[in-house]
Amino acid sequence: MIIVLKPDATADQIQHIEKSVHEWGLRTHFSRGTERSVIGIIGDESVLANKPLDVFPGVDSVMSIQKPYRLASREFQSKATKIAIPWGRPGGEPVEIGGERIVVVAGSCSVETPDIMLETARYIISAGARMMRAGAFKPRTSPYAFQGLGVEGLKILAQVRAETGLPFITEVMDTRDVEMVAEIADVVQIGARNTQNFSLLKAVGRTRTPVLLKRGIAGTLEELLMSAEYILSQGNDRVILCERGIRTFERATRNTLDLNAVPVLRKLSHLPISVDPSHGTGAADLVTPMAMAGVACGADLLLVETHPNPEKATSDGAQTINEAQFRKMMDGVRGIASVLGRSL
Amino acid sequence: MIIVLKPDATADQIQHIEKSVHEWGLRTHFSRGTERSVIGIIGDESVLANKPLDVFPGVDSVMSIQKPYRLASREFQSKATKIAIPWGRPGGEPVEIGGERIVVVAGSCSVETPDIMLETARYIISAGARMMRAGAFKPRTSPYAFQGLGVEGLKILAQVRAETGLPFITEVMDTRDVEMVAEIADVVQIGARNTQNFSLLKAVGRTRTPVLLKRGIAGTLEELLMSAEYILSQGNDRVILCERGIRTFERATRNTLDLNAVPVLRKLSHLPISVDPSHGTGAADLVTPMAMAGVACGADLLLVETHPNPEKATSDGAQTINEAQFRKMMDGVRGIASVLGRSL
Amino acid sequence: MIIVLKPDATADQIQHIEKSVHEWGLRTHFSRGTERSVIGIIGDESVLANKPLDVFPGVDSVMSIQKPYRLASREFQSKATKIAIPWGRPGGEPVEIGGERIVVVAGSCSVETPDIMLETARYIISAGARMMRAGAFKPRTSPYAFQGLGVEGLKILAQVRAETGLPFITEVMDTRDVEMVAEIADVVQIGARNTQNFSLLKAVGRTRTPVLLKRGIAGTLEELLMSAEYILSQGNDRVILCERGIRTFERATRNTLDLNAVPVLRKLSHLPISVDPSHGTGAADLVTPMAMAGVACGADLLLVETHPNPEKATSDGAQTINEAQFRKMMDGVRGIASVLGRSL
Amino acid sequence: MIIVLKPDATADQIQHIEKSVHEWGLRTHFSRGTERSVIGIIGDESVLANKPLDVFPGVDSVMSIQKPYRLASREFQSKATKIAIPWGRPGGEPVEIGGERIVVVAGSCSVETPDIMLETARYIISAGARMMRAGAFKPRTSPYAFQGLGVEGLKILAQVRAETGLPFITEVMDTRDVEMVAEIADVVQIGARNTQNFSLLKAVGRTRTPVLLKRGIAGTLEELLMSAEYILSQGNDRVILCERGIRTFERATRNTLDLNAVPVLRKLSHLPISVDPSHGTGAADLVTPMAMAGVACGADLLLVETHPNPEKATSDGAQTINEAQFRKMMDGVRGIASVLGRSL
Repeated sequence: MIIVLKPDATADQIQHIEKSVHEWGLRTHFSRGTERSVIGIIGDESVLANKPLDVFPGVDSVMSIQKPYRLASREFQSKATKIAIPWGRPGGEPVEIGGERIVVVAGSCSVETPDIMLETARYIISAGARMMRAGAFKPRTSPYAFQGLGVEGLKILAQVRAETGLPFITEVMDTRDVEMVAEIADVVQIGARNTQNFSLLKAVGRTRTPVLLKRGIAGTLEELLMSAEYILSQGNDRVILCERGIRTFERATRNTLDLNAVPVLRKLSHLPISVDPSHGTGAADLVTPMAMAGVACGADLLLVETHPNPEKATSDGAQTINEAQFRKMMDGVRGIASVLGRSL
Repeated sequence: MIIVLKPDATADQIQHIEKSVHEWGLRTHFSRGTERSVIGIIGDESVLANKPLDVFPGVDSVMSIQKPYRLASREFQSKATKIAIPWGRPGGEPVEIGGERIVVVAGSCSVETPDIMLETARYIISAGARMMRAGAFKPRTSPYAFQGLGVEGLKILAQVRAETGLPFITEVMDTRDVEMVAEIADVVQIGARNTQNFSLLKAVGRTRTPVLLKRGIAGTLEELLMSAEYILSQGNDRVILCERGIRTFERATRNTLDLNAVPVLRKLSHLPISVDPSHGTGAADLVTPMAMAGVACGADLLLVETHPNPEKATSDGAQTINEAQFRKMMDGVRGIASVLGRSL
Repeated sequence: MIIVLKPDATADQIQHIEKSVHEWGLRTHFSRGTERSVIGIIGDESVLANKPLDVFPGVDSVMSIQKPYRLASREFQSKATKIAIPWGRPGGEPVEIGGERIVVVAGSCSVETPDIMLETARYIISAGARMMRAGAFKPRTSPYAFQGLGVEGLKILAQVRAETGLPFITEVMDTRDVEMVAEIADVVQIGARNTQNFSLLKAVGRTRTPVLLKRGIAGTLEELLMSAEYILSQGNDRVILCERGIRTFERATRNTLDLNAVPVLRKLSHLPISVDPSHGTGAADLVTPMAMAGVACGADLLLVETHPNPEKATSDGAQTINEAQFRKMMDGVRGIASVLGRSL
Repeated sequence: MIIVLKPDATADQIQHIEKSVHEWGLRTHFSRGTERSVIGIIGDESVLANKPLDVFPGVDSVMSIQKPYRLASREFQSKATKIAIPWGRPGGEPVEIGGERIVVVAGSCSVETPDIMLETARYIISAGARMMRAGAFKPRTSPYAFQGLGVEGLKILAQVRAETGLPFITEVMDTRDVEMVAEIADVVQIGARNTQNFSLLKAVGRTRTPVLLKRGIAGTLEELLMSAEYILSQGNDRVILCERGIRTFERATRNTLDLNAVPVLRKLSHLPISVDPSHGTGAADLVTPMAMAGVACGADLLLVETHPNPEKATSDGAQTINEAQFRKMMDGVRGIASVLGRSL
């Protein structure tokens, strides 16, 4: 931590600051500049998390020089984290997330009928996807919109897994449901509206089920890593980071997919990185180009909404692609992956 | 709902759209323009919430003409909602929120020791505040930061109420805690990170305790009203809306207090409106001018962080004002209120 | 400037950095931390403006500790700048901007016919305004929209000034017009789309006409002060800063008026501060509450769009108030001013 | 245009609106809904650009159904625009922008010495770039930063072109310089701070030199197309759109490169689309992944900052890549292009 002093900070003020810092068990290092003097604080910055240094008389501003996350950082662990998800039928190869192969996770927004789910599962497998996604509990802006099938939806997903082998990702929204969802799902998802629902993060952190953590609607990458840190600090070390579009002033797309996030997170963290081009754009015709771009800049996993008939989808039809579009997307993604020495 | 057609939409496509809309129980009205033709949909738009009209062939865009919230709207209820909070000691006058008197709610960010809480309570009452605020459960970006005193904090708040009469507002973060917090607190707060935690909204909606609902960190005013609608639709009709600063590109302040929200919400809704100049700015020296501005444009309630010694505050010291500053703020606010024909 | 080193920075890398800094004529100060070491740079930071320290091997990040503006800063000049504008007719009292009296500048968006301008001038004077505003050169998003009356508009404004005494503010958009506009106008305005049109800033900086400088559509306060610095550094020391709403994700209002800017700029700079509630909100019914809030938090000047008949206004009618609304606004603003010990 | 009426709009108000619209030469179409009635306006919406329909009594809101740009739209011209730039030495093949081959334009941020420029030109040609970029007139946030070599810089660029054949793009900032710059440069650039400098847009629109138009720092895609429309409407039909990163709340990168823009602009417009991964990220190590992603989602042209020794670059060194990095980027981009059936 660097404390920048006001130009007119007095000796008494400086002494008061230094004394307080010493009381907290840290050392200080005063450096007089021509225009501004600074006090460097030496030691573990996390001690300062609750200390309002900004309000000390004589302080102009306070700058952090350490990263506030630790377990999620590449400095803590230089080797990339790989997460193995067992195949849903005996004898199948596990799905590895964060390895050489890019994992495409596909499915409808909400869990639909068993027939539709099975039809979807079959065409996505045949096109090269290796996991399924669908929401049983749906966070909807309106209380009057369809809220998901709930437990019934989880059963349908498990049934499809039993028949096809496809492991699945599904969202959990309520601390009271965490245990149940983590029991049945292969990966639990924390949605963009719950990225800073710290109670929920702690709850999934206490399970041993991998977590796909979406970036908040207006969440910084540092906040995303801090939310990952919540999960990791509870003992669950299998977290997948997900860029899913952020909120900006632009309304030509539902969200602004921030692909810069992929190489930035790669640099900062050892955790696998995923991209959701469906929510990231909100428009079916943008999914394929943005899925390809996401892989081109380094994503390990894609999360894509597809439905046999998007016109009949229970939710999010506007950003859902059909089978033909999905197969075309997979071809494009496969091509891009090969340029990077990766495969599907 | 207005469906804008593509210039090259075919008769078949138009017929397919109209047929689908009729199947959903709504009527259509086709209008041919010189450049664009449109189909107006007549009937209750909420039926369309789950219908992906955007993906129908021939559709260029879809525009909503009805507001998606109902119970929160001024059209549903033209009279301003007033919420009475009983005084915490026998014989005291209830605190009315949304009435002629402006309610100032003050206190430390986190619940502190009983002594500090009592000292704070005494000076804020003597300066004209009529409710207390402090967090027992704290949403902190870092898992390593102080997470609040929890149940112990609630007890301290109740004890201060018993001694001074001050009713209190405190945050709830976990569905599992809702019942307990709603039992003891006079008003429960939903924080900015949980504005779209729909499980939590439903849970507080099922209690009969008034709810102070903060605008999301990057939440639109429409989303705020939709979150209020979640609570109202569960039967709890006592919701206070709160502007607390939004996230923008500007970093000179921690958040950008959006005071436009006050007159906009006044026009759209009958619910009481509050402003939090402490979180809205993140800086102690901005609290007074922004509190005055908030009242000048029509706020019913102010939520202000104060502490006998901000340097020693457990959290958020940088935006916390001390007793002298608080008294000065109250004088300014009182003056502004009188210009508007209101009082403290 | 503080250079934060990577944890694995080598002695060679550190030496290379220090050597380069010394070559630029500055001193360094190395400080070893437990997790991160830093190099403090001592001397005038502006030397470093063109030095890409971020790309030096071993550097993690670079943090500035000096403000990049100088002439605009309160540290350079602690006394508030006051700008006197001569009254437009002999014997009239000059209008002082930045003094005890709050200056309301009002008028139509575009210059209208002489009759309408005169009618407007008369009612705004009688209500207490002391300057007029109207655009002769109009920055319009569409090339097909009305682009203003140009030189003819300037003549109308001068004629109204001659008859009523009202000095006027008008926008300049093109370096080729600066001399002419600065000759005739009392204050030239730099609009929000030109806040970083550095050629234009230099050009107005070379005149001796006061400049009202609007904050950019997505401009930070630091950028606003840097743009002021452009003007000041050319020798023109009469600059008025203007908050006019920024672009955010919120669309309930055309822009998000950021009133935090007023007390923040007050702290950072000695220049007078103005607020434009018309552009800041984009809605006529929000102008009065936000004008009052703007004064409540400390604005020196208000810029308000008014027209005898907003329905017939050539541009921006939606945010334009009529005479009755204007008089009501002035009453509200006068009341707020008096609470602050100021007057109109 | 669709006018949405207030629920309580009176017959008189509706008649007044309809009468006014008829007077403007347009037809109306009234449609009564169950909750909201609307008036459709039939005819050329551009007539309404200056009409403040929002302030008419009884009007709740006004929604546009036509696009405000015409010449830039794909509806106006379905065939993709291709722009041929002559090679700078006799016998060389012209560079086609918007065709099958992807054009990489590279060079230093500012024009450097002739030697450095020549060295850069040689390695970028040998790696497959076909145009050069460098700024002679530099828009700098600080008046104290290096402002570019000006006319001298243009001469250096012309000299490098004469020796190597590389055509060049360079920025123009001042209407007074347009003629001169357009005379010498192969493509003139309008920078992100001048995207809505309408005087400058008109001035370059009157030349016959192709224009690379950068998206504004916080400009919507519609505004970008409107700015293109300014240029096109003056008779210059050779405009290249450029995504260069937008301003958001995220600070991990200097800007947020919005690659969604590429497929969105492709759908809306016939103009060639370029991406600037250097400004779009602000960090040298992000340039290659984002250049590859930009091509993966469909860009026609890349604008990349490179310098033989970024540590010595006069400006923007932090986002500048060196020769080795540039060659590696070109390899990646070439691979991605081939997947799309394109080449460099």
